[in-house]
Amino acid sequence: LKRILAVPFSKQDMSDLTAEVEVYWLGDLNERDLDRLLPSVDGLFVNLWPKELDAQRLDAMSNLRFVQSGFAGVNHIPFQALPKGVVVSSNAGGFSDEVGEFAWALLLAAAKRVTEFNSKWKENADKTPLELGRRVMVLKGKTLGVLGYGGIGGSVATYGRAFGMKVRAFSRKDIPGVESLTGEAGLTSILKESDAVVIALPLTNITKNLIGEKELSLMKPGAVLVNVARAEIVEERAVYEHLQRNKTFVYATDVWWTKEGKETYPPEMPFFDLENFIGTPHVSGPSAVPGRGPQNNAVENLLRFARGEAVRNVVVASDYL
Amino acid sequence: LKRILAVPFSKQDMSDLTAEVEVYWLGDLNERDLDRLLPSVDGLFVNLWPKELDAQRLDAMSNLRFVQSGFAGVNHIPFQALPKGVVVSSNAGGFSDEVGEFAWALLLAAAKRVTEFNSKWKENADKTPLELGRRVMVLKGKTLGVLGYGGIGGSVATYGRAFGMKVRAFSRKDIPGVESLTGEAGLTSILKESDAVVIALPLTNITKNLIGEKELSLMKPGAVLVNVARAEIVEERAVYEHLQRNKTFVYATDVWWTKEGKETYPPEMPFFDLENFIGTPHVSGPSAVPGRGPQNNAVENLLRFARGEAVRNVVVASDYL
Repeated sequence: LKRILAVPFSKQDMSDLTAEVEVYWLGDLNERDLDRLLPSVDGLFVNLWPKELDAQRLDAMSNLRFVQSGFAGVNHIPFQALPKGVVVSSNAGGFSDEVGEFAWALLLAAAKRVTEFNSKWKENADKTPLELGRRVMVLKGKTLGVLGYGGIGGSVATYGRAFGMKVRAFSRKDIPGVESLTGEAGLTSILKESDAVVIALPLTNITKNLIGEKELSLMKPGAVLVNVARAEIVEERAVYEHLQRNKTFVYATDVWWTKEGKETYPPEMPFFDLENFIGTPHVSGPSAVPGRGPQNNAVENLLRFARGEAVRNVVVASDYL
Repeated sequence: LKRILAVPFSKQDMSDLTAEVEVYWLGDLNERDLDRLLPSVDGLFVNLWPKELDAQRLDAMSNLRFVQSGFAGVNHIPFQALPKGVVVSSNAGGFSDEVGEFAWALLLAAAKRVTEFNSKWKENADKTPLELGRRVMVLKGKTLGVLGYGGIGGSVATYGRAFGMKVRAFSRKDIPGVESLTGEAGLTSILKESDAVVIALPLTNITKNLIGEKELSLMKPGAVLVNVARAEIVEERAVYEHLQRNKTFVYATDVWWTKEGKETYPPEMPFFDLENFIGTPHVSGPSAVPGRGPQNNAVENLLRFARGEAVRNVVVASDYL
């Protein structure tokens, strides 16, 4: 039996995993037992990378071959410290519907100005519906840019098509029925032409700070930008200043900038003072956990590893080094 | 040429109408000219019923055969004062996409708690994403009740299917692929089983106060109720008290109760003090006006009348008497 060291969402309903694998829960081990176990561990199952597994302990894991992330993103994993030849899998697909739904909620709240109308109701009491209605974006016939076309991006594109939008993807994949663009020219084209843009990319060396001052300035003045991926894909100061200068532009995000290894919510900059900002406390992924989709998706992949089958969602380590 | 007395959204781009019909704009006529014109008017094109056209003036309109509403709803039309044999058409279909989109924005804002997370960010700073994520409703696999299956209800059902929801309709129509129920038993079943309910019914004698204390008590404690139709379909005090008692239930509305002939926004009762309430200033229909869908839809029907063709969207007058 393969030995897995696990820090899962919860031990509950992990019977599929424990039936075929020898599982050790990190929280159950004292330092001595952990150090004794490390050389025999074949695989890791982690959510946010546990601080116990520092570079020294990783060096001791001479048997380690596989790391399964519980999160969809793997940017929390210390790739530079992993022993050579260790395969890392993301939990792509485990959150597609739930995070996609949440992205669409943010997109619609921004396009229809729901948060603003709801909170500023006193200010609008004397305005006519026709006057206020002009501030509402109609999605049908408009263009949706989907940055990253994994499970989440695919869900978002499905909703966009149901709403009669023209979908354009920023992706290295060939996607049947969807215009797919790459590189700086592709990104420029999508940002210029889209009325709404959803970021559903992994955070890698390539995507970090992908959307800065220049990219924001390419976007339509009344566009909506939604982020359900990782905050660092967007430059914090650039988007803050863009929102200050462009009152019809909306940035709606569920994800927050990491400072000193911690996702900072609320943010350091006064985003919540801006009317054209919508922020939620990184609940899109966690909203999938009660339905067990992410857990089951990760366990299935761990079982593939345990059985010697080809694992899925292997990430390209060099994108993270 | 038929004579139409019109109070349209705006005179702009009414060339399709004026090319085939003799149009008089109510706002251009003084009292004397209006009174002189009335006996020769064949049709009316109105938005909110104009106060100039009182019962006495309607009596003078001996030639009147047709009333086209600019609004999707016709509850503003004084059916009891209309001369016998006058056909009334709603503007059904003119707002389907835009009001449908808005309904989905309200539904998602409620299901994902977007307005609450965005405004109460200080209160949630110390809570974990997993804890907060439990408050988010995932739509996939859930049941959507659509009350009224006209153009707007149809759009909403399309979105529901794209989100993987099971759609149940409260409608007298046979709808291919959708379970369609009628009567008190049908309504009870839909209210009991739905996780989200969208009201897209016309306001008639039958639908007025359709959703009162009893009906609300049938719904799931964590359900979402969206209203983009007319406020009076829901009993004001009943829904207020239901929201006070059931903090996980959300009522999200774009429409407001009419008091003394005027839609009152903000409402008399302190709905905006409730965290589980979302309100927008009746912008869903008006958001369609810049795109000219409602105007074109109404003009097409007026041209059918002018050409002696069968008009569409004829309402059953007895539903409003």
